[in-house]
Amino acid sequence: MTAPTHSIVWDTGHLGRTEAAVLHAARDIRVEDRPLPPLGVRDVLVEMKSGGICGSDMHYFADGQNGTNVLQKPTVLGHEAAGVIIASGEESALEPGTAVVIEPSLPCGTCATCLSGHSNVCPNGRCFGSPPTDGLFARHTVVPASSVHVLPDAIPAEIGAAVEPLAVAVWAVERAQVEPGHRVLVTGAGPIGLLVVQVLAARGVREIVVTDVNDARLAVAAGLGATDAVNTATQHLAAAGFDCLIECSGVTRALADGILALRPAARAVVVGQAKAAVDGIPLGFLQRYEIDLVTAFRYNNAFPTAIELAASGKVDLRSIITSTYPLSDVAAALEAPVSDPSNLKVLIRY
Amino acid sequence: MTAPTHSIVWDTGHLGRTEAAVLHAARDIRVEDRPLPPLGVRDVLVEMKSGGICGSDMHYFADGQNGTNVLQKPTVLGHEAAGVIIASGEESALEPGTAVVIEPSLPCGTCATCLSGHSNVCPNGRCFGSPPTDGLFARHTVVPASSVHVLPDAIPAEIGAAVEPLAVAVWAVERAQVEPGHRVLVTGAGPIGLLVVQVLAARGVREIVVTDVNDARLAVAAGLGATDAVNTATQHLAAAGFDCLIECSGVTRALADGILALRPAARAVVVGQAKAAVDGIPLGFLQRYEIDLVTAFRYNNAFPTAIELAASGKVDLRSIITSTYPLSDVAAALEAPVSDPSNLKVLIRY
Amino acid sequence: MTAPTHSIVWDTGHLGRTEAAVLHAARDIRVEDRPLPPLGVRDVLVEMKSGGICGSDMHYFADGQNGTNVLQKPTVLGHEAAGVIIASGEESALEPGTAVVIEPSLPCGTCATCLSGHSNVCPNGRCFGSPPTDGLFARHTVVPASSVHVLPDAIPAEIGAAVEPLAVAVWAVERAQVEPGHRVLVTGAGPIGLLVVQVLAARGVREIVVTDVNDARLAVAAGLGATDAVNTATQHLAAAGFDCLIECSGVTRALADGILALRPAARAVVVGQAKAAVDGIPLGFLQRYEIDLVTAFRYNNAFPTAIELAASGKVDLRSIITSTYPLSDVAAALEAPVSDPSNLKVLIRY
Amino acid sequence: MTAPTHSIVWDTGHLGRTEAAVLHAARDIRVEDRPLPPLGVRDVLVEMKSGGICGSDMHYFADGQNGTNVLQKPTVLGHEAAGVIIASGEESALEPGTAVVIEPSLPCGTCATCLSGHSNVCPNGRCFGSPPTDGLFARHTVVPASSVHVLPDAIPAEIGAAVEPLAVAVWAVERAQVEPGHRVLVTGAGPIGLLVVQVLAARGVREIVVTDVNDARLAVAAGLGATDAVNTATQHLAAAGFDCLIECSGVTRALADGILALRPAARAVVVGQAKAAVDGIPLGFLQRYEIDLVTAFRYNNAFPTAIELAASGKVDLRSIITSTYPLSDVAAALEAPVSDPSNLKVLIRY
Repeated sequence: MTAPTHSIVWDTGHLGRTEAAVLHAARDIRVEDRPLPPLGVRDVLVEMKSGGICGSDMHYFADGQNGTNVLQKPTVLGHEAAGVIIASGEESALEPGTAVVIEPSLPCGTCATCLSGHSNVCPNGRCFGSPPTDGLFARHTVVPASSVHVLPDAIPAEIGAAVEPLAVAVWAVERAQVEPGHRVLVTGAGPIGLLVVQVLAARGVREIVVTDVNDARLAVAAGLGATDAVNTATQHLAAAGFDCLIECSGVTRALADGILALRPAARAVVVGQAKAAVDGIPLGFLQRYEIDLVTAFRYNNAFPTAIELAASGKVDLRSIITSTYPLSDVAAALEAPVSDPSNLKVLIRY
Repeated sequence: MTAPTHSIVWDTGHLGRTEAAVLHAARDIRVEDRPLPPLGVRDVLVEMKSGGICGSDMHYFADGQNGTNVLQKPTVLGHEAAGVIIASGEESALEPGTAVVIEPSLPCGTCATCLSGHSNVCPNGRCFGSPPTDGLFARHTVVPASSVHVLPDAIPAEIGAAVEPLAVAVWAVERAQVEPGHRVLVTGAGPIGLLVVQVLAARGVREIVVTDVNDARLAVAAGLGATDAVNTATQHLAAAGFDCLIECSGVTRALADGILALRPAARAVVVGQAKAAVDGIPLGFLQRYEIDLVTAFRYNNAFPTAIELAASGKVDLRSIITSTYPLSDVAAALEAPVSDPSNLKVLIRY
Repeated sequence: MTAPTHSIVWDTGHLGRTEAAVLHAARDIRVEDRPLPPLGVRDVLVEMKSGGICGSDMHYFADGQNGTNVLQKPTVLGHEAAGVIIASGEESALEPGTAVVIEPSLPCGTCATCLSGHSNVCPNGRCFGSPPTDGLFARHTVVPASSVHVLPDAIPAEIGAAVEPLAVAVWAVERAQVEPGHRVLVTGAGPIGLLVVQVLAARGVREIVVTDVNDARLAVAAGLGATDAVNTATQHLAAAGFDCLIECSGVTRALADGILALRPAARAVVVGQAKAAVDGIPLGFLQRYEIDLVTAFRYNNAFPTAIELAASGKVDLRSIITSTYPLSDVAAALEAPVSDPSNLKVLIRY
Repeated sequence: MTAPTHSIVWDTGHLGRTEAAVLHAARDIRVEDRPLPPLGVRDVLVEMKSGGICGSDMHYFADGQNGTNVLQKPTVLGHEAAGVIIASGEESALEPGTAVVIEPSLPCGTCATCLSGHSNVCPNGRCFGSPPTDGLFARHTVVPASSVHVLPDAIPAEIGAAVEPLAVAVWAVERAQVEPGHRVLVTGAGPIGLLVVQVLAARGVREIVVTDVNDARLAVAAGLGATDAVNTATQHLAAAGFDCLIECSGVTRALADGILALRPAARAVVVGQAKAAVDGIPLGFLQRYEIDLVTAFRYNNAFPTAIELAASGKVDLRSIITSTYPLSDVAAALEAPVSDPSNLKVLIRY
């Protein structure tokens, strides 16, 4: 365990303070001194080592909102985060010094949705970094011990934040009900798409075709296990009859075209962040062939598989990490993927 | 069994002739003398007693196409049809005099889709009345014995054509995975919606809320088992948290609003004929709550249940039949629902 | 509609009387005059035309019990029955003169089991002919209108009782999740097995292998669609790797051997009446290959399909009916299959 | 990483040698010098730190066979094993020094069973330690890199072998389709049962009732999250209506009694090693209530979740480890649980 990089005074039951990236308004993010809540008996205090910039963070930063969720008060951003436990509540079994990644969803655990096994879509749920719930771009954070997953040495906390998007990819593949004998189409070779490709390859899926409009990203996909990579800006996707589609681009056109490449009774999974309302969905084709259009929201019990895939090298987290910024440059980090599309996953380092 | 109403000369292996409603072009439908194919050993010759006008027939008549399927040569219209067998091939067990309804789908039976139990979406499949396959608006038709279902006396062939849309409703409810304890939202109180309401009521579903923009149709729905009927032109749909949506209007707005009234991890079924491409689908909401958007295409083994529901009185076929026309007035029949929306199901009588 | 064969005085609200086969004790069954209950507003009075002898009836007659259910008071036997409605309560849509088959299960409709779609295994449910609930071997019976299914002319009420075992076969095939591409093993060529074979053939299943120890029954199976018929008393079942097993013999050895002929991750369905406790189940093999052992109890929404299959000739009810007895000879009817195993389904005729 | 405890000479492509526990016949196990195979490009060489004694090992030792699998030649025993990688093939991404647990199943990956997602029941599959395939009770072993899972520091390799039975428990719970709102019955509080209890508790299951005949084990269960613990040797299991049963004792009576405590349409999962053939299965009850009897064989993609649960402290591996033996005392280790039932999991330490 490395020494804390920021001096805090911590005494269970008393407030410590830390530095955090607080979004005050669109394009107004400030690294500020903030109080930490007391450490509950089932909480852990995590010293952060990495934070990942997600599209939703970029939306909050650019627009003060993401989808229908609007910033209402200054809020700490960030939901992709890993670090090292430096204090552990008395009822937590986790030892200080343990590297962990945080699962940011906070379901209520008691509603009908949770009790039927769908806690990831709990209507009462909150999520770190979804305003008004403060997020994880902070040097230290207090989280419930139940919100962390232990990282093996093979996944240093310094890149551990990338486990969160990998969990997204794992869950998307699960929702797709993929079998090894399947032919799968992945639209979008951004961070999620590239992770989905690797998860599919790790599962032994025999054909993985990836589409994007960026040749560099497609080249990365090809190196990570895609059996074919098609630039839909310049090429026609000739293959058809896929058993499932995993839409990772967030581009409606990719979803629409991808659906048209499916076999009858196939399954299309939307994991790329969906716009509130989309146009041009080929509902007629979905209906003619009874193709199911389903979605993946975050993850449901997917972190363990994500950690294993990364630790064993079946998935290469570094394959998607293209740049890192110090916390003080969080604004630059939030803009990097916009200003340069060759950026895939941008990390905050503390 | 009544006497044939049109003189045919029938001799196995020789051509007979009959009168059929042949669509030559948009708005050009002619009742013409047409040859009948020879009666194969596993075929039956049906003398028609009723034909039902479906939205797709109206599209072919109005536009010369339905969705992406374009009329290419003069084609007999019609896929909702019932009649009486007047001749039976030597390997058919069906007796002349038997009243039957025709299941119009003609799957190939040998492709991967068919062999995995999805013959209703067979990519090689044809369907009576889907150009270029001739349909069933004819005084006589030769069909495979495997394409007919026997009608009990409680369903006279003179209304038997309405069993076809009831099979659509039965399959939609099956695709919805409805359980008796569920709360179900049905959007659209046209023929299919009204049949869906009755199927749900027959299954003992405890709450059935129907929406439409026409008070007369809503009043019919209320009389057929809907527990609530909401005119969305004038009222807000206050109820929410439905376990499933069965969209029967073909109106994208109804689908979109209906989705927003679902609980997390719910199921939305599109049965109303979908446009090739639709706008305004709330994909963000579908994703936030992992609601599955699925479709129902025709029916998969649904005619038996449809027949039983109608025969037992649990579903009242006459509740949706609002007018009848002779074959010679087929053009008027095809326009009736357009010119007067109080029309629900319009029948051809021979 | 034929004239009633037994004089009753029926006046809604007053008691009529009829003749019924009442089991007083093991081997003591008497055809007696019994009062009929008043006709409720949602009831129908059925004049019986056929009754079918089931193995359970034979057990009650032979032993005064079936499985764990013991006769406690004189009870009318019989749950396979068809007849003609001769009076209909004022809220029933069913017309006098309608031929019907009775679905004998009487679920409560309000418990968690029923509300989740499993009313066939309702723990509060009763069933006609399961003591202490009186059954249907009577010249007349009052049943809820919701308990009857209308028969088409192609299924005369005189053989309509056989629709009940056909519904058992339909449900067993549904529980088996059979697809047309499957290879299916059916053990036992008694009435249920022979009906299962026909249902599978009607579904286009490509390979149907039947086993029994009686060559005559196997010959019948071969004539009804089985692709192979194996006498396991004299031959070894060489085929293996079946996608599913449908056990229809009630013989544990057949179940055990059938399981051993399945592929990994296959499905075994027990429909033949299971003994309370069975020995020799190859649990090790089930576990090594994660084969699911499931059961079928009566039927869940299976009568409509059964009626359609019989009416269309895809299933031949007469293929399993081997003898008929008048009601007065009910004791002989109950012994016939025991004394002569060439008997398949024995009917009571009124 | 600790220094190797046994001197080996290793040079890729040349044979090294190690010490292994070789079973020659029933009750004849010898720690012998054995050659190691060459290190393939996708292999890793693991220096073992822990091995776990499983019931199957005890059967091979006691009887020379386990179920139907008979020892045919001297074979290294053991399939629960963890250690540290000390050499890695050139195409393996795993670094020497990495602590790993071995997933012992070796499916073919190309058969229909594997391609449909059921590789754990691959009929062509082998498994380390299932004769004739040599096992993992050896100071060093060469295994495919794809067979190992990386352990975090929170799971020292010295106890890592216990991850394998935890994976069994994880898969059993998955096969049970448990939801948090469920009431679950666990029969058997041995190592697997105690791990199942902890997995269920980690999933937030609201009621977990455990049965056993040993009060000490039941006390352990109560301390690990069981909401009730019932000694069925002395008490009647009063509770009923469970949503699922997870049978972990391998005792048929426990399975039979457990089934009788289920609600209609429930699910019984057999994970305790099943005898080849079992007697007294309440098939009648299974059928009356359409309860599905399913099994769990090893695990299907369950190691990641097992590792996460152990690393985070949600499952306490040490709670089931009751004694350790050096490799030289492997015979004593194999007898310990038999001679003293207070033993739960016995480990080999190297």
